[in-house]
Amino acid sequence: MSKSLETLNGIVQLDHGSGGRATQELVQKFFFQLLDNEYLLQRNDSALLPWAGGSMAMTTDSYVVDPIIFPGGDIGSLAVHGTVNDLAMQGARPLYLTAGFILEEGLSLEVLGHVVRSMAGAAREAQVMIVAGDTKVVPRGKADRLFINTAGVGVVPPGIQVGGQYARPGDSVLINGTIGDHGMAVLCKREGLAFDREILSDSAPLNDLVMRILDGCPRVRVLRDPTRGGVATALNEIARQSGVDIVVLEESLPIEADVAGACEVLGLDPLYVANEGKVLVFVPPEDEELVLNLMRNHPRARKGVKIGEVTQEGAGRVTLKTGIGGHRVIQMLHGEQLPRIC
Amino acid sequence: MSKSLETLNGIVQLDHGSGGRATQELVQKFFFQLLDNEYLLQRNDSALLPWAGGSMAMTTDSYVVDPIIFPGGDIGSLAVHGTVNDLAMQGARPLYLTAGFILEEGLSLEVLGHVVRSMAGAAREAQVMIVAGDTKVVPRGKADRLFINTAGVGVVPPGIQVGGQYARPGDSVLINGTIGDHGMAVLCKREGLAFDREILSDSAPLNDLVMRILDGCPRVRVLRDPTRGGVATALNEIARQSGVDIVVLEESLPIEADVAGACEVLGLDPLYVANEGKVLVFVPPEDEELVLNLMRNHPRARKGVKIGEVTQEGAGRVTLKTGIGGHRVIQMLHGEQLPRIC
Repeated sequence: MSKSLETLNGIVQLDHGSGGRATQELVQKFFFQLLDNEYLLQRNDSALLPWAGGSMAMTTDSYVVDPIIFPGGDIGSLAVHGTVNDLAMQGARPLYLTAGFILEEGLSLEVLGHVVRSMAGAAREAQVMIVAGDTKVVPRGKADRLFINTAGVGVVPPGIQVGGQYARPGDSVLINGTIGDHGMAVLCKREGLAFDREILSDSAPLNDLVMRILDGCPRVRVLRDPTRGGVATALNEIARQSGVDIVVLEESLPIEADVAGACEVLGLDPLYVANEGKVLVFVPPEDEELVLNLMRNHPRARKGVKIGEVTQEGAGRVTLKTGIGGHRVIQMLHGEQLPRIC
Repeated sequence: MSKSLETLNGIVQLDHGSGGRATQELVQKFFFQLLDNEYLLQRNDSALLPWAGGSMAMTTDSYVVDPIIFPGGDIGSLAVHGTVNDLAMQGARPLYLTAGFILEEGLSLEVLGHVVRSMAGAAREAQVMIVAGDTKVVPRGKADRLFINTAGVGVVPPGIQVGGQYARPGDSVLINGTIGDHGMAVLCKREGLAFDREILSDSAPLNDLVMRILDGCPRVRVLRDPTRGGVATALNEIARQSGVDIVVLEESLPIEADVAGACEVLGLDPLYVANEGKVLVFVPPEDEELVLNLMRNHPRARKGVKIGEVTQEGAGRVTLKTGIGGHRVIQMLHGEQLPRIC
């Protein structure tokens, strides 16, 4: 069992930022209960809000990744991708982002320039605009170089209904490619671990891919990007929100050999490692082939595969079916597997 | 002259967070140039965006105030008021906010609870909802207890046209009360300075006041909240955006005796000290009395007064006319007068 808030001596611990169970407990107790409103309590990647007779999605994330620059990306591109993707997961077309910078005195302006240029490039690629910003500076030692918050809004087209609460028994669970790349890229860079090839983050905008999937198959039930806490935690969240059980086929999980190797060396389970360019797609079984084809025709989903299915209504249990026919319950992430991964 | 970016040894300095000239140079070079788009370049408190056939305002601010809790407010209420006010300054009706928390390992959960409850109360009072959030945790020593980012969106009613670029010669410059309270409240608390009475921050939501002013006088030209950099910096920004000169009457400036005393002791000019519940209102001279009456009938503007006027088209010069008939040019804040005031 994870430590409850009461046993934590009344202070914030690194666990609370894991994206797993401790985060959920903290968020439940401090944010959902105190800031209680129907939109916040939707518990999806972004809030779905009424606006001018239509629907708007809105979301925010702060980025504290260490190191700031890592193989395959940096805190700037990550801050754009993360928020664009959270909007896309609601079926929204992302339009406008804000960016709030907290700079530590002494940060290199060259690094800042690199990061902001990277944000600009990521925004162009995702076809969003950064329309408002803010800059704060704190004295040396009061922050760690550079933190970025992005918030974003997007238009939700009429007729779209996706969310973690819509998984149904029989649904196929698809993913657009390999898992664990982002977390291992950041960790290996931070810890100075070298493997045969450098592991690259998968950080990427998913809005174009999602739009094509939804255009081709409006019956998609759930879209979720398995970031902090990884695929295991995302599936647990969905299983609970929908009141269903999910089975994942271990041998179908796409994992790069280098990522698998690094995870083994470090004793990490790739199911819990963060991704920043992946999306879990739940579709009715009759749409599975259609959606897999849509995915494989898109550059962000060439390796799209089915990794599992929703078996039945239930208490929200996620099970891994291993190659030799065994079963293992996959729980939500306990504790902090990888701090400051995003 | 302020130090240029080139002379800063290529690193971020505290000056860059002042809200004054160094901030503007940094923002110009790194954000406006690299993230260039028509909305970002509006340079108002929030961006005015097309949405669903109407207009939306969107803004963000990160809050790093030290101490977290100060007389008259805390980082939570401040984070709501600041973003609500930035939306109101665009004539928008604030609707939805997001909140991103960066927590330092070891932060007291009691303090966190206090802050979030305070946010909830501030949101209720301002009639906005916090609809999405995010929590990150960084190890001890990598942040300073608690930083909060809020972003917000609001609906701009048809026919509203306010902005820093609309000041015209002849306009009266009004303010809704005393200046310098927030900055001095935070500074005195942080430095342990005791005066006869405790100075209270003026942190407050201004959206209801602004709505009543605009309802009663749609011809208002400029609304701006003089936060970091104070009244002097805000007036300089407006003067430049509109290409006009502004004269401020020193004896009309409302300053609490305690604030004036504290400023004198500390060698600070209250014109440069941050406010978090004040709005500068530019109106055509024929509407001055109307708007002053609207203000004085509202609890957030009982002490509303005229403090100056727009004299002519010009290069953006702001002049203080002293009691004995002298004139002094008031420039934008140079350097960092008060770090971490918001």
